[in-house]
Amino acid sequence: MSHAVVTLLTDYGPHSEHVGSVHAVLVAADPGIVRVDFAHDIPLGDVRFGAVVLERLAMRLPDAVHLAVVDPGVGSERRALAVRLATGGYVVGPDNGLIGPVTRALEAVAAVALPARPGAAATFDGREVFAPAAARLALGEDLERLGTPVDPGGIVGLSLPSAVISPGLLRAEVLGCDRFGNVQLAARADDAAEAGLRAGQRVEVTGPAGRCDAFVARTFADVQRGALALYIDSHGWLAVAENLGDAAARLGVRPGGMIAIAVPRTPAP
Amino acid sequence: MSHAVVTLLTDYGPHSEHVGSVHAVLVAADPGIVRVDFAHDIPLGDVRFGAVVLERLAMRLPDAVHLAVVDPGVGSERRALAVRLATGGYVVGPDNGLIGPVTRALEAVAAVALPARPGAAATFDGREVFAPAAARLALGEDLERLGTPVDPGGIVGLSLPSAVISPGLLRAEVLGCDRFGNVQLAARADDAAEAGLRAGQRVEVTGPAGRCDAFVARTFADVQRGALALYIDSHGWLAVAENLGDAAARLGVRPGGMIAIAVPRTPAP
Amino acid sequence: MSHAVVTLLTDYGPHSEHVGSVHAVLVAADPGIVRVDFAHDIPLGDVRFGAVVLERLAMRLPDAVHLAVVDPGVGSERRALAVRLATGGYVVGPDNGLIGPVTRALEAVAAVALPARPGAAATFDGREVFAPAAARLALGEDLERLGTPVDPGGIVGLSLPSAVISPGLLRAEVLGCDRFGNVQLAARADDAAEAGLRAGQRVEVTGPAGRCDAFVARTFADVQRGALALYIDSHGWLAVAENLGDAAARLGVRPGGMIAIAVPRTPAP
Repeated sequence: MSHAVVTLLTDYGPHSEHVGSVHAVLVAADPGIVRVDFAHDIPLGDVRFGAVVLERLAMRLPDAVHLAVVDPGVGSERRALAVRLATGGYVVGPDNGLIGPVTRALEAVAAVALPARPGAAATFDGREVFAPAAARLALGEDLERLGTPVDPGGIVGLSLPSAVISPGLLRAEVLGCDRFGNVQLAARADDAAEAGLRAGQRVEVTGPAGRCDAFVARTFADVQRGALALYIDSHGWLAVAENLGDAAARLGVRPGGMIAIAVPRTPAP
Repeated sequence: MSHAVVTLLTDYGPHSEHVGSVHAVLVAADPGIVRVDFAHDIPLGDVRFGAVVLERLAMRLPDAVHLAVVDPGVGSERRALAVRLATGGYVVGPDNGLIGPVTRALEAVAAVALPARPGAAATFDGREVFAPAAARLALGEDLERLGTPVDPGGIVGLSLPSAVISPGLLRAEVLGCDRFGNVQLAARADDAAEAGLRAGQRVEVTGPAGRCDAFVARTFADVQRGALALYIDSHGWLAVAENLGDAAARLGVRPGGMIAIAVPRTPAP
Repeated sequence: MSHAVVTLLTDYGPHSEHVGSVHAVLVAADPGIVRVDFAHDIPLGDVRFGAVVLERLAMRLPDAVHLAVVDPGVGSERRALAVRLATGGYVVGPDNGLIGPVTRALEAVAAVALPARPGAAATFDGREVFAPAAARLALGEDLERLGTPVDPGGIVGLSLPSAVISPGLLRAEVLGCDRFGNVQLAARADDAAEAGLRAGQRVEVTGPAGRCDAFVARTFADVQRGALALYIDSHGWLAVAENLGDAAARLGVRPGGMIAIAVPRTPAP
């Protein structure tokens, strides 16, 4: 078996029946397939955050088959795709932006549109269309036998919002929040540098719930319990955390909300 | 190994210690057992919905060992059973209705009552009784060596509530709601047909929180954002969804609640 | 492969991306590693409860590699350790008390401090430090090659609070609550015996939300629906459950809270 690892990323909910159904399809095809759950707690229908997570996790298993379903438009005209990567791996999922970033990062070299299965349920392509395709690829079947060839350059992309930067000020959208209340922003290390944020600096972070002091830090424990840390997270994004607390709740933000980070005009006393 | 796939369905909670304990028993018996999590988010003690999910997922892996525990009466006089199916698979679980539907659908051909383990905890039969039995069956041991033979015809069944149907009106109980807020009703496609519901038709759906317009559709995306769709779900049940929203919250329903669907006397203007 | 089973216990949240990241590291090292999720719903940063769960689950797979991360001090000066057990298994995790109980119960025979990886993220040692170490041990690499030897006797321990006992009265701290609302106390069977609690006895259980009658029982179903049972749970701890209800909510307790159990002076009428 040339591609015996299949990863799964969905918004189906942890250990939900929907996740189990997809696993069952893979195991029915071959119990020897190595199944890896990347994430199933993606916020409902949050294609953007699903795409971000898929890209960074798939990089770690570049020759696996990546099955991803965050698909609020299931049953609509959006295409169902299977894509071969330059790395030898595959991505299978809806063509709604979810698989855009990973197929660019790992370079799509061929793609097919998967046909609807006659008589299949119209509301569960994860089980009816995507998982069967992933299983066939995992078992070594040729991509070209799964559907109609399409231009891999035409896969729907995803544009992340850019940070707005001026000297001493950075405004960015919230990409996602995790269980710890850590807030991941649509800004990278170089955006922070451009705004003039420096390690150890005190800054002000403003969200819908108000303004808080924060410190530019390397990790949570660099600030006092209950203080906010502004740091580059483990994926290279700018993020805000409260040491032993919940920064998302403190700032009142959710995915899609805005955060402003400002260097105070006058240094702290 | 003749039955090396073991599936798990419980109300223990996603990635909870209880789920981990059952996995540990299987791995301790043989790390080569292929473990498949069907679902662990079954509502607490909801034997009926657990039974519905178990039946439809087990159909996909008919020769696996299915370990199912939704068992509010653990430690009581209800029997602990292991059942051989005509398909070559097995079902292991409490005899409280949970395993009734699957053992009828896949035809129970033999059954044994599992003994309590001397000195075992009285509150965790999943770990003490069911998982060890599932492991032994997965490793090829004879069912008859696991317990006392009982009549497979005597397994406790489960009667689902029937939809109440008259021309233009269908009343049904809510079987379950998923993470998306989709509401699965105790009614099937033929019930909808009998009530005269036709594709594209506008209907009124009434739940505890009030009455909403809905459209008989094939999938969510067939209706506008925020509109309700009445559709046959991927398991063949009649269901209500809000496109990109939460129908269960909108209608104010939970499992066990009632929904009425009516064809308006006068067509919409 | 001498240690091909790797277990995982974290507070990362069920089926979260963080859990997926750790799995990805293991699979990238070798898809043949048998991965077992012990628990990922440990309350955020609850090192103590994580330690309790880790110890009791690891006992069931004594020769596996146990990867445990509940690590509110990630990036601080606390050590990252890999420990060889007398059983032939290993434990990998932060030296913050989390791995103390299991390394005492299964006897640590050697330990190394794991180095930080140059250029690695400072906020995700689970992915950067612990999972790679666990993978190397699973693949048979010598512990001594992973880091700097340290004294296994110096691993940070964990002292659980003791129950306070007098005749007819027992006060104990809440260690944890599960999805069912069952309340696990920092007291064992012999504590209950010392306080004079006897099977079938009526007692009074007092929590922040008030005082309730309870019965010393063997299992939930020994008491009426909605009644409280005081029992020895499946791990040997004294616990309180409400039959078909939520004892934690009824008593108003959370981990770290206090419960008092009293034998009434006058028998119930």
